[in-house]
Amino acid sequence: MNSVRSTSWENELKSCIRGKSLVFLLADSNLPDSYSKDIVKVCKIKNKTHLLKIKGGEQIKTHQHLIQIYNELDVVGADRKSVFMCLGGGTISDLGGLAASTYKRGIDFIILPTTVIGMVDAAIGGKNGINLESNVGILKNQIGTFYQPKLIGINFKWLDSLPKDEVKSGWGEMLKHALLIGGPHLEKFKNAEPNLASLIPLIIDSGNIKEGIVRRDVKENGERALLNLGHTIGHAIESLELDSSNASEIKHGIAVAWGIVFTLEVSVRKLGFNDALAKQLIKWIVDIIGYREHLWESKEVWLKMCKDKKNTNGNVKDVMLRSPGDADWHFTWEREEFTILWEQFRERYELTSC
Amino acid sequence: MNSVRSTSWENELKSCIRGKSLVFLLADSNLPDSYSKDIVKVCKIKNKTHLLKIKGGEQIKTHQHLIQIYNELDVVGADRKSVFMCLGGGTISDLGGLAASTYKRGIDFIILPTTVIGMVDAAIGGKNGINLESNVGILKNQIGTFYQPKLIGINFKWLDSLPKDEVKSGWGEMLKHALLIGGPHLEKFKNAEPNLASLIPLIIDSGNIKEGIVRRDVKENGERALLNLGHTIGHAIESLELDSSNASEIKHGIAVAWGIVFTLEVSVRKLGFNDALAKQLIKWIVDIIGYREHLWESKEVWLKMCKDKKNTNGNVKDVMLRSPGDADWHFTWEREEFTILWEQFRERYELTSC
Repeated sequence: MNSVRSTSWENELKSCIRGKSLVFLLADSNLPDSYSKDIVKVCKIKNKTHLLKIKGGEQIKTHQHLIQIYNELDVVGADRKSVFMCLGGGTISDLGGLAASTYKRGIDFIILPTTVIGMVDAAIGGKNGINLESNVGILKNQIGTFYQPKLIGINFKWLDSLPKDEVKSGWGEMLKHALLIGGPHLEKFKNAEPNLASLIPLIIDSGNIKEGIVRRDVKENGERALLNLGHTIGHAIESLELDSSNASEIKHGIAVAWGIVFTLEVSVRKLGFNDALAKQLIKWIVDIIGYREHLWESKEVWLKMCKDKKNTNGNVKDVMLRSPGDADWHFTWEREEFTILWEQFRERYELTSC
Repeated sequence: MNSVRSTSWENELKSCIRGKSLVFLLADSNLPDSYSKDIVKVCKIKNKTHLLKIKGGEQIKTHQHLIQIYNELDVVGADRKSVFMCLGGGTISDLGGLAASTYKRGIDFIILPTTVIGMVDAAIGGKNGINLESNVGILKNQIGTFYQPKLIGINFKWLDSLPKDEVKSGWGEMLKHALLIGGPHLEKFKNAEPNLASLIPLIIDSGNIKEGIVRRDVKENGERALLNLGHTIGHAIESLELDSSNASEIKHGIAVAWGIVFTLEVSVRKLGFNDALAKQLIKWIVDIIGYREHLWESKEVWLKMCKDKKNTNGNVKDVMLRSPGDADWHFTWEREEFTILWEQFRERYELTSC
């Protein structure tokens, strides 16, 4: 893992593209034009630069979009000495990372994240992926590679265009890192509001927590699984919402925050997490994310959990907490127990059940 | 590169699948049923085993086939602890390797090659890939990864079902290795007929030549480019034949052999390769592969060469020989010179031009 993560994005970018044959910039069309224009200006001094804009979002993580990118790369004449650059959030870099890692068996890759989630999570650690349409609906990130970006260029000004619900979604991933590390960082994070002004000073630290874990276990053979805290449930909820066109779409970090609330409840029962502390944390989290109109039935959630990439030998794996800063990634779910605990949880936090 | 390549395929296989959740076997349906049945029998002792048969050939190296495999993996419940196994030639392992390396970001991969090319070349070195349909036709292996198999299990009996033209195609890749190493191996190879009985004793040595080069340069930053000897032209001819439904399909190793004949001619002019030796080698090669009904026009070949993955900064790269065992992978083509040399070459070896 030799990624550079830096707020001196302009200088680092210039150094990364020096001597390269061509720069291909995949940018989210939701962003202000000035963002990509500025970057193209920086790159054009030294290199032929091509810009492809697509509208970011979970719906682009498909083979069709991947093939579209391959064809664009071919049309502009990208070769092995070309650089693939992503400007946008996690869905842009998930799709772009897979394209960069498989085009001609891999070309240089740079991420310029424009979301909180991108800066603290998605851009770090080299995971990319697209979703698979299966017989049980859409499975998240089933197809992908581990591929490290050469550079993660951070410019906090790019966050100015971020919608408020995306900021809150970023807060959900930062919450995960804060619970994984505990200590003073968690205290600082608890005092922060879920808005940009409060979160920006914590972004680099939050990213460092992830980077530390990933560096010790790049291919997720052990410790890296910690980063799935809240994600077994989070991904299941996200997948269910994606499958159902009637449901209101849920943001990734909010789904993860719900996963964390459930995890805290279960951790009290199963790993002796301090009950009073769990209640206090849950109240704080739910005050921020709000009760939910609809949480899914246990059997629907279970079906999705069974398809989780982390599972091995048919066991549904999850991450639990003994205390903040002390997590266990070896937890295995029994269906019966999950069903009981989930239905209790649902009754508490689903508005229609309340 | 920690691949095991072994003729004790059965024992090695058992050891590779121990403790794994599931075995997925992708087999070429052109092969006798008994081959896959025998393998399933070995695997079933310890593991759930699923068999998917598809008809091998360049036409399967597409996104459609890749997606089909992902869906099959999902249906049978393959997880990260599953093993993906390929039984067949290079097209099966090229497609399967990409599937294995990208399904849930990579699962264990085993190749059981059933062709000479598979045993001496395709299975070794971790390259996989599918073709891209572009605006200039089909581009070979444009999409892929570097992904090392845990095991390359070799059973010479699987070669019994190989058609004669596939054996000759294997001879073409073995020719390449022999010219790259020179010395006693080349002499032994020159004395071998292009049939199984003569080639089998040389297969392990031929594979070792490739393995040695790959081990020193896994990601093809330098020396590994040597293995492209004869392949710039070879791939161009193959792509043109694939694009044109009227043309008779050319086998990979035969296309490479033509690439080598052209390379020897050019090497005499450009790198001082011994003229008499080149003539002797060319006569030997052409006696085996036979003159060709149709070789392509220089402008058509050039267009394909311009799309070669090896090219950087718009330069068309190639590999030339100073002498057997002494190759140069830094050769760059000028279009004008290529055009003259190719048209002279074509006049000599195309039946319709003769």
